[in-house]
Amino acid sequence: MASMKTGVHPDLQIERENGTFDPIQLTNLLHGGPEKTRRKRYIQSLAINDKTFKNSPNWATLSREERYELAVKKAIHQARRVKELGLTDPLDRYFYNQAFMPNENSPFGLHNSMFTDVITNQGTEEQKSKWLPLIQSYQILGTYAQTELGHGTFIRGLETTATFDGKTDEFIINTPTLTAMKYWPGALGKTCNYCLVLAQLYTQGHCHGLQSFIVNIRDVNTHQPMPGVEVGDIGTKFGYDSMDNGYLRMNNVRIPRENMLMKYSKVSRSGVFAKPANSKLLYGGMVSIRSFITGDCGRSISMACTIAIRYSAVRRQTTDSSGETERKILDYQTQQYKLFPALATSLAYIFAGMNISRIFMDVTSKIRQGALDELPQLHALSAGLKACSSYKFNEMAERCRMACGGHGFSQASGFPKLYVNITPAATYEGENTVLLLQTARYLTKCLVSAKQGEELPNLVAYLKQPVDGRTCSINSQFDSNSIVSAFEHRALRLIEDCAHRIQYLVKNGKSQSEAWHLTSVQLTKAAQAHCECCVVKFYLEQISRDPGPKLQQVLQALFQLYCIYTILENIGDFVKDGYLNSQQIELLNTKLLDLLAEIRPNAVNIVDSFDIPDEILASCLGRYDGQVYQALYEYAKESKLNQIEVTDVYYKHLKPFFEEQKKLADVPILPSRL
Amino acid sequence: MASMKTGVHPDLQIERENGTFDPIQLTNLLHGGPEKTRRKRYIQSLAINDKTFKNSPNWATLSREERYELAVKKAIHQARRVKELGLTDPLDRYFYNQAFMPNENSPFGLHNSMFTDVITNQGTEEQKSKWLPLIQSYQILGTYAQTELGHGTFIRGLETTATFDGKTDEFIINTPTLTAMKYWPGALGKTCNYCLVLAQLYTQGHCHGLQSFIVNIRDVNTHQPMPGVEVGDIGTKFGYDSMDNGYLRMNNVRIPRENMLMKYSKVSRSGVFAKPANSKLLYGGMVSIRSFITGDCGRSISMACTIAIRYSAVRRQTTDSSGETERKILDYQTQQYKLFPALATSLAYIFAGMNISRIFMDVTSKIRQGALDELPQLHALSAGLKACSSYKFNEMAERCRMACGGHGFSQASGFPKLYVNITPAATYEGENTVLLLQTARYLTKCLVSAKQGEELPNLVAYLKQPVDGRTCSINSQFDSNSIVSAFEHRALRLIEDCAHRIQYLVKNGKSQSEAWHLTSVQLTKAAQAHCECCVVKFYLEQISRDPGPKLQQVLQALFQLYCIYTILENIGDFVKDGYLNSQQIELLNTKLLDLLAEIRPNAVNIVDSFDIPDEILASCLGRYDGQVYQALYEYAKESKLNQIEVTDVYYKHLKPFFEEQKKLADVPILPSRL
Repeated sequence: MASMKTGVHPDLQIERENGTFDPIQLTNLLHGGPEKTRRKRYIQSLAINDKTFKNSPNWATLSREERYELAVKKAIHQARRVKELGLTDPLDRYFYNQAFMPNENSPFGLHNSMFTDVITNQGTEEQKSKWLPLIQSYQILGTYAQTELGHGTFIRGLETTATFDGKTDEFIINTPTLTAMKYWPGALGKTCNYCLVLAQLYTQGHCHGLQSFIVNIRDVNTHQPMPGVEVGDIGTKFGYDSMDNGYLRMNNVRIPRENMLMKYSKVSRSGVFAKPANSKLLYGGMVSIRSFITGDCGRSISMACTIAIRYSAVRRQTTDSSGETERKILDYQTQQYKLFPALATSLAYIFAGMNISRIFMDVTSKIRQGALDELPQLHALSAGLKACSSYKFNEMAERCRMACGGHGFSQASGFPKLYVNITPAATYEGENTVLLLQTARYLTKCLVSAKQGEELPNLVAYLKQPVDGRTCSINSQFDSNSIVSAFEHRALRLIEDCAHRIQYLVKNGKSQSEAWHLTSVQLTKAAQAHCECCVVKFYLEQISRDPGPKLQQVLQALFQLYCIYTILENIGDFVKDGYLNSQQIELLNTKLLDLLAEIRPNAVNIVDSFDIPDEILASCLGRYDGQVYQALYEYAKESKLNQIEVTDVYYKHLKPFFEEQKKLADVPILPSRL
Repeated sequence: MASMKTGVHPDLQIERENGTFDPIQLTNLLHGGPEKTRRKRYIQSLAINDKTFKNSPNWATLSREERYELAVKKAIHQARRVKELGLTDPLDRYFYNQAFMPNENSPFGLHNSMFTDVITNQGTEEQKSKWLPLIQSYQILGTYAQTELGHGTFIRGLETTATFDGKTDEFIINTPTLTAMKYWPGALGKTCNYCLVLAQLYTQGHCHGLQSFIVNIRDVNTHQPMPGVEVGDIGTKFGYDSMDNGYLRMNNVRIPRENMLMKYSKVSRSGVFAKPANSKLLYGGMVSIRSFITGDCGRSISMACTIAIRYSAVRRQTTDSSGETERKILDYQTQQYKLFPALATSLAYIFAGMNISRIFMDVTSKIRQGALDELPQLHALSAGLKACSSYKFNEMAERCRMACGGHGFSQASGFPKLYVNITPAATYEGENTVLLLQTARYLTKCLVSAKQGEELPNLVAYLKQPVDGRTCSINSQFDSNSIVSAFEHRALRLIEDCAHRIQYLVKNGKSQSEAWHLTSVQLTKAAQAHCECCVVKFYLEQISRDPGPKLQQVLQALFQLYCIYTILENIGDFVKDGYLNSQQIELLNTKLLDLLAEIRPNAVNIVDSFDIPDEILASCLGRYDGQVYQALYEYAKESKLNQIEVTDVYYKHLKPFFEEQKKLADVPILPSRL
């Protein structure tokens, strides 16, 4: 892009000058302080300033196979650099990797996360000392194979078997049916030579449920599949081009007994199975990943907002009367209504992610001291927040894309790659509906405890309040307590309604389980309501940390917008028992429009605060300098179809067709110029 | 797929046996009678049984450039076959093309539609007799170039100029700025040699606004760009890989004066501009396209439903207790709640499309007799319905995809291609928000007329009713009249509220135009409410045509589900003035769950009624025979990465990396078997 105009577009310049707060303040708040902001920028700059792949063609112009190859090359380079730079802190690695491969998945990603982590957490000391050095030195490259063609959500239903053979002291791994084949694991298809296989353990004629087994799938020297192994890529997907998600069938594949991870469960030389003492500790990993996804979805929405808001500040369209300058599209109320709720939602889930990580660390340290009682609350919340945040990402990212009209549809905008990279979050690490029902299960249990007068953990303590006959205290002050109370009331009302319906159905002859199924739509909504109530509290907690009066005012407006928008989108929940009245609805409707106008002058400064370098945003529309049209033109010129002026397609197909038609046609021969 | 299992999956077989109605009845209703169903099937079979491209690789495995080439080859073959078969009826062509290139855009599409149509409608007799034979015999291949880099929605703002040069009797076409470059027109990049250029006409020193010009952009013999023309592909997009959407810059490109389309506006030899007598007639084309999009979005949702519902009837997941057979996921209330509202919405917009096409033909014939008074109502409705239907497509298609979990994310599912092909409908042929505001403009005018006691056209006649103090009559009977009244009340209430707000703002010193802007969010919602009210009426009209008692019952349940779901999703509109009360909300919530259970046994038969051949659905999950797992496995094996067992990526990158790391590592050399 050597020919790019330099300098910031004046329309963006003015936006930045007119903001009422200093963006770095919000940047620091979002990253945990000035020191952490500096560290993040430093780490990102290491990846951004690495020129190794600077001459690679634009990702958008590559075929799927080229994307995969480039990703492997990048993963290799990244692995070397991470070692050379000595990046061991997970946050450092996150920022480095994200800057190096924005919105892409590294084919080494699962090797460094799930494969390593599960062996670390479920392996014995002996197993760890054998395998971890091999992993860390890339002498083996692994992935994690859980999902099968026929089973994702319901892991108890996995069909792969691992049968102990006492004669040889081995397990025999089999894919007994078509649906038992492993399907989806990342980097399984062509990249890895090892994987952790989740399989049903059989020994002494009994099934002992799922265990993890280290299986060598490709020869470490030749990369050919091992005997009995059929493995390959599963083909193209909505996105994830750089990842060879794979399938795997195993036919009597033998592995040594010591390849079962035995920190908890064990199989002895004689084939005796021993159960783990406590399985709750296995939760930890999932809670941590789901908490991470919550913040990541928030940050991904912030990317979409950055693109859409900067573009809307330089895109001008339509005058009311001729002769006038056209308006910035950001000045249209309808555009603000599309983008600012997304902006507020983004902050809401970034804050929620920060809070839940803090809670996670707190609970983890308590667990180390033997206190497990806060784990269920955390598990329920992290499951529910993962579901809510990934749904919100989908909704808000597409809303931002469509708010950018035609140009939003181009890969140049950055939206498509962002969307297809994050939308699977609704499925992976637990299908959203299933997770929400787990959260609901916890909440209904808490409600029973509440009725019995038991103490409840802080985030569900509101379930002890009486629900009937309350009215909402929201008035023109929009004070935060009345907003929090409204969210608490809504969640409690929905959970109560579920409990009543289940009771009613059981009284009328349904089984407990059937009654639960027949209430499941409402249960997922109740779980969402609880999570949204927590998000509101987390948001408030974050902005109450005295960020300074100017930023405080901006955050307050976004907080109110998030809350009011969420209330209005779910207004049925708030009015069905008369809690909120018609006057209050009107008040909320009007306030929402006022808030759009209030937020407008700071919109660009707020997205600047997200502090996303152009190289990570990778968007012609979201550029910091606002030179969007020049960038779109440069993008077009890079198209592979433009490498030759008159393409082969013309000579091979169009020209012969035109000539054939000319002969057939009963019209005079066309002169070369009309 | 030679190795595919044959026979229908027993889980689907049972669904089909257990349905309460005969699917062919609904098929006929949706297609306009048995004769039209037969014709549709015959036409589709002509394309499906054409084996010319049967040995082409799976579309999902091709690169963007290969997809473009295949599309050109298909377009050529299609053009030949359409001539040979003598397909002249637009509906025949639609079914043929759709079956031949499902969810793809033909690079000849705009040649045969916009390019031909605009010349036909806006050309003089002389122009038509010169150009149409050249078009029909493919001696020239054209497209329609309206959108520019800087202007889409606001066409008055287009910057391309056409300046009359009296000396040579020519127009000089120019792209005066960066933003004036044409950007997005389909097939412009590499395929076409002609285009219709929309440009500001300058003659005798004055600008006379936009006119259409026939411009030769590539030499018809060499395909090289004409002097002064810079043209190319705009690069990859979210989808539309088979289409070379292009950019075009023109520098003093000269065309003869006769290349301006002059049926309405004219420029004489001496450069005198003459205005058209009546410009309203230009509306017709847009109304027709937008009406078509409405039905097309409905049909596209029906494709998503077909995939998701058939898959959900064979996918089994989770048991309540071990030993039981796992449940079909279609039996979960949460899954029904995702899919059945989509099913009902699909029918709603298919019916709306059928109705609006009927109204369009009716109004068109009246226009031919000189009666233009129904055109504004039709224009407002077709604009609004296009917006509503395309938004609904986006929401429902992604909802269906995500309801299929991981497998929905694979291109094998068919969802990604469907989604990216239809989602631009929110932008093309009028940006949705802009269209809704046009609808709102019409409605506010009608409201003024209503207050003045004037007669209103039938679909807006409800605006004459008094709005205050009414209460909703919906009770446990859910009778259709009370439902229609509720939708009428909601729309009227929202339009009234807009009018009040505008009045209030004007009284408080805002200009009329500023007051309109400050009400625009509500105005778009009012427009949506009006359109949804019309959709409800159209639906009712369709099912009241006595389709027989069994089908009637199914359609009635879907009608009620559509209405109740829509009311609950927008409940704030219905409760804010006290129209609907708490008991009624409870009633609706409960009824909705009952309807899910009622529709469940017919779900598969309903999607079968959409009568979409497997070849068009192109989905491993949506196959008529339900053999989804076998199909996914076959799909995986087709991946290009699987063509070689050990890929080049291994030899070029992974192997050298492993060897390098082995040397660096301070661990024993790994034996070939662990």
